[in-house]
Amino acid sequence: MNTSDILTHLAGVIESRRNNAQAEQHSSYVAQLFQKGPDAFLKKIAEESAEVIMAAKDCQLQKENQQHLIKEVADLWFHSLILLAYYEAGPQDVLNELSRREGLSGLVEKASRSS
Amino acid sequence: MNTSDILTHLAGVIESRRNNAQAEQHSSYVAQLFQKGPDAFLKKIAEESAEVIMAAKDCQLQKENQQHLIKEVADLWFHSLILLAYYEAGPQDVLNELSRREGLSGLVEKASRSS
Amino acid sequence: MNTSDILTHLAGVIESRRNNAQAEQHSSYVAQLFQKGPDAFLKKIAEESAEVIMAAKDCQLQKENQQHLIKEVADLWFHSLILLAYYEAGPQDVLNELSRREGLSGLVEKASRSS
Amino acid sequence: MNTSDILTHLAGVIESRRNNAQAEQHSSYVAQLFQKGPDAFLKKIAEESAEVIMAAKDCQLQKENQQHLIKEVADLWFHSLILLAYYEAGPQDVLNELSRREGLSGLVEKASRSS
Repeated sequence: MNTSDILTHLAGVIESRRNNAQAEQHSSYVAQLFQKGPDAFLKKIAEESAEVIMAAKDCQLQKENQQHLIKEVADLWFHSLILLAYYEAGPQDVLNELSRREGLSGLVEKASRSS
Repeated sequence: MNTSDILTHLAGVIESRRNNAQAEQHSSYVAQLFQKGPDAFLKKIAEESAEVIMAAKDCQLQKENQQHLIKEVADLWFHSLILLAYYEAGPQDVLNELSRREGLSGLVEKASRSS
Repeated sequence: MNTSDILTHLAGVIESRRNNAQAEQHSSYVAQLFQKGPDAFLKKIAEESAEVIMAAKDCQLQKENQQHLIKEVADLWFHSLILLAYYEAGPQDVLNELSRREGLSGLVEKASRSS
Repeated sequence: MNTSDILTHLAGVIESRRNNAQAEQHSSYVAQLFQKGPDAFLKKIAEESAEVIMAAKDCQLQKENQQHLIKEVADLWFHSLILLAYYEAGPQDVLNELSRREGLSGLVEKASRSS
């Protein structure tokens, strides 16, 4: 699978787990979070962002911790996708928002010119 | 620009801002964060994740708040990109991690079979 | 003033600032937070807890950072008092909760016996 | 026990649990956190502060949720005490810091005059 499609694919997987959660009490991690309701994954957002912060602090100690930081950011983004799915949005909405932002289009254009 | 490339483009823009931060004290928001050092954007990660949590809570009150939630997730991901850039990583590392995960490949495969 | 009364005194000060916020747009930091409404100091809770986490990580690097950690915990508790005041509660409610907890009474009793 | 001494008592209990953690692998919650090391309770700080934020948001929905908010602040302060104990500080250090702050003494004095 093309890496550029990973977020969209993941969102699809999460969405199917969500339906399972409603239909047949599927036992996967994602289905469990959906069953517990929003406070369960909102807590995960807080926890994962704290783990990102701690992993970044560990990078200041030792550069080899960079791989750990990447894993924690992956956890944070993954739980963001769950959150978005619950509120009937997806990664494409976030990417659209990022590209639409005032100034950002300017930044991107400037970046293209300089490359 | 293809939306799938947005994260990579943004990372490039952030990287160029970072170099500016070192070279010519560029006054952009990103350059300022780099100049202040990691604690400045780690605090932003915490703040943005709290704003995601609050926006999600507001969605429970009123569905119209979904757009606000998307903006807050965009902020969180944007500051994640700054953090990654500082530690010499990028969105592709996170996407690779997400696609490499054990179980995830299973999830994705299962999802493809069921579709 | 007896240190044991500090939290209660602070709560009183915060309460008076709150009333000022409503009555005469007082310009103090606390009054400003009350005027901005709950999301403003909820963000501060998130920010201060992240600063506690970062300060603790810095203690792992260098023991001299202990004093910085104490300041950050003080910030976190101070903003907790503002939050409590907004929702018409105070430190005594929190202290009562801490002493009332099942198990905790056991813990405390055990501690007294062992001392 | 006088409520004003609760924090100090709790700190004593936590300290004794900490020693148990080192000496005899005591199975209490506090001993377990100490055995896991600082990242375990730093994550709890993040999680509890998120729960405070969510509980406060719930208060905006329904005033009856005030009691839940008080419990979450109690959790946050309790884990702050564990953190302080680990770094060889205690609630008195935080209370001293709160009373020492420049401006705060002013605030407190002003409050006394107005009462």
